[in-house]
Amino acid sequence: MDDEDENVMSILVATDIHVGYMEKSSERGDDSFIALEEILKTAKHEKVDFLLLGGDLFHENKPSRKTLHRTMELFRKYCLGDRPCKVEVVSDQSVNFGHTSSSITSVNYEDPNMNIGLPVFSIHGNHDDPTGAGELSAIDILSVSGLLNHFGKQTKLDAINISPVLLRKGSTKLALFGLGSIRDERLNRLFTKRLVTMLRPKEDKDDWFNMFVIHQNRAKHGPTNYIPEQFLDEFFDLIIWGHEHECRITPEWNSIKNFFVMQPGSSVATSLCEGESKPKHIAVLKIRGREMKHEIIPLRTPRQMYVETIKLSDRISTKGVASDEDLEEQARALCEERVEQLLMLAEDERSGHPKQPLKPLIRLRIDYSGGFSTFSQHRFGGKFAERVANPENIVHFLKKSVKRENGSGM
Amino acid sequence: MDDEDENVMSILVATDIHVGYMEKSSERGDDSFIALEEILKTAKHEKVDFLLLGGDLFHENKPSRKTLHRTMELFRKYCLGDRPCKVEVVSDQSVNFGHTSSSITSVNYEDPNMNIGLPVFSIHGNHDDPTGAGELSAIDILSVSGLLNHFGKQTKLDAINISPVLLRKGSTKLALFGLGSIRDERLNRLFTKRLVTMLRPKEDKDDWFNMFVIHQNRAKHGPTNYIPEQFLDEFFDLIIWGHEHECRITPEWNSIKNFFVMQPGSSVATSLCEGESKPKHIAVLKIRGREMKHEIIPLRTPRQMYVETIKLSDRISTKGVASDEDLEEQARALCEERVEQLLMLAEDERSGHPKQPLKPLIRLRIDYSGGFSTFSQHRFGGKFAERVANPENIVHFLKKSVKRENGSGM
Ligand SMILES: [Mn+2]
Ligand SMILES: [Mn+2]
Ligand SMILES: [Mn+2]
Ligand SMILES: [Mn+2]
Repeated sequence: MDDEDENVMSILVATDIHVGYMEKSSERGDDSFIALEEILKTAKHEKVDFLLLGGDLFHENKPSRKTLHRTMELFRKYCLGDRPCKVEVVSDQSVNFGHTSSSITSVNYEDPNMNIGLPVFSIHGNHDDPTGAGELSAIDILSVSGLLNHFGKQTKLDAINISPVLLRKGSTKLALFGLGSIRDERLNRLFTKRLVTMLRPKEDKDDWFNMFVIHQNRAKHGPTNYIPEQFLDEFFDLIIWGHEHECRITPEWNSIKNFFVMQPGSSVATSLCEGESKPKHIAVLKIRGREMKHEIIPLRTPRQMYVETIKLSDRISTKGVASDEDLEEQARALCEERVEQLLMLAEDERSGHPKQPLKPLIRLRIDYSGGFSTFSQHRFGGKFAERVANPENIVHFLKKSVKRENGSGM
Repeated sequence: MDDEDENVMSILVATDIHVGYMEKSSERGDDSFIALEEILKTAKHEKVDFLLLGGDLFHENKPSRKTLHRTMELFRKYCLGDRPCKVEVVSDQSVNFGHTSSSITSVNYEDPNMNIGLPVFSIHGNHDDPTGAGELSAIDILSVSGLLNHFGKQTKLDAINISPVLLRKGSTKLALFGLGSIRDERLNRLFTKRLVTMLRPKEDKDDWFNMFVIHQNRAKHGPTNYIPEQFLDEFFDLIIWGHEHECRITPEWNSIKNFFVMQPGSSVATSLCEGESKPKHIAVLKIRGREMKHEIIPLRTPRQMYVETIKLSDRISTKGVASDEDLEEQARALCEERVEQLLMLAEDERSGHPKQPLKPLIRLRIDYSGGFSTFSQHRFGGKFAERVANPENIVHFLKKSVKRENGSGM
């Protein structure tokens, strides 16, 4: 597809940016903002038609004034501008965007009083879900500022009817369905009772590319607190799955439902687990008619992260060891050596982006079963205070190394 | 002066709007927003060059999401638009407005990505003073949204140098000095030590109309916790005094310093005192060269308020009264009658504006010295629950009716 093709809609997809995460940390407080800026900059550079976010833009339900201000600064810097948006909204815009304010009657780039060069569409996540008087989300402050188009908010509790944002560029038609985060159990029940309805466009039904943006558990954490892919309508072409922080950016084919699922994952790691330690990516979708291509873009600013499990009994023989102290010393030495190796690896693997933080996150999961004992986290971390971003919790002791196969919805 | 005169700068002046005041009250929660809307609407209708606010736009330092959202909705509704602003800023704008964000490099109406039809300039008050990480005020959320120009913020603690916003329209030149709220004692001390300096424009010094916007105690509450008018420089033509909630809109001449002082007062009453019960006004200033005229505009939406002091011993004779109960009954009847009279008066005096709330605020200050006793506030209020906005505290008992001569800075 030619980028400049007037029939190709190009969309940058990202999710779970969690701005404000650890904002008070002098070491890590900027990470989420650096990633947001990289995403916005990439969207501008790639000249996409719009940026699509899958929820959890904000880490806190009530972001601090500074986080809100800083986020708005970045949106203003990258989203305002003269570049015309060639995507036309053909659905009822007050239905799509006016859920929180009767003053919002259209997509932001149709407001004659603002120049929007990069439109952003977003659903809300569970971190930035609507609460309090007025049932407003933190992202509604951005939407009332004209910086973001908040779609997919449901106000009814007993049944869900999703009106898509209908977008057209040349001959390409995109029906963009969205659903802001809802408690998994409740949504699961509504699906089971067939109370979730997608209001598909009636005309030229088969001409639309159908996309659904959802922010729920995808991995099973219990019988009903996730949303099985099988619950989702077969007419969809692509599901953008937010909330799960592991980056699974390559679209996965669901052969039962005949749709793809793309899970971009978070741009900042909010937990020291394996899923989050995988390289972070975003993607540009290019849609022409009902055909879709995607281009994967690695993020170059996220802090590097290494998570490893070490079973001490596999590596250290307890036979002939003089004392418990001696054993402990061997275990510590082994871990220190591994951290040193990971630090070297991190240096090799640095992206070269000037804003990528220098100190990596390192987590060693130490299985100390088989006669070993734990050692002081504090003393261990002290050795790496200047080189590791999380000296306070590099090692994590466990009795049995159970690998969590499931993802980590956040 | 002709309104359309290209050399006349016209400015709507208001202060202490306190949006969000009592926001949780179903009866009074909308009052502050109604007044804000009236002020914005008036500014638009009067086609002023800009709206000037004297601080305390927000009642709470951390306004609720709903209050912030609602305020931004109103600003967007009235401040965006095609009307060109003919006032040119000739000072260093990043100094004037960039104190909280390097991204703010100019007045909002010079941003090519926004259409500002009604510029707003504001200092911060003590209610919306900068706090927390980043030293941001709630009004900075509006300024980073491009809806307001926040000026007069001081970042230094040891000395204050005020750079005016220099504005020019045709042959008229306005030097707009502002100082966001500072603890009175500290500012008083800085003035005494001659550490407050006004950085007047060097060229054509005598051509400038010099205005100063301040948000401090004007009334003396103690030896140093107010700012005497005499502290202020004589070169000023007009002082706009915020913080004091009593409306003294007619400029008062200070014959020692040779300047006028205009005190617009709050647009919503935040305390049931006499000062606040006076009719609320705003004013349009018209400046041509160094000549100034003003036009007073009564606000028609503020809730009516009546405050009266009744000395029971002046009105009821204790002689020949059968019992204490009887005396109490007479006092209550007297007060009830007065409330009824005030309710009738309120009906007569209603502005006719459809948004003016129907129920007035009524406060009877009951001096019960001279052998009288108090009676049940609760029972008394119950009788007026449907007709008075503050049934819970209509009467206020005092032993001696000391009339506070001083204002009530808030
Ligand atoms: Mn989430
Ligand atoms: Mn998340
Ligand atoms: Mn004040
Ligand atoms: Mn005030």
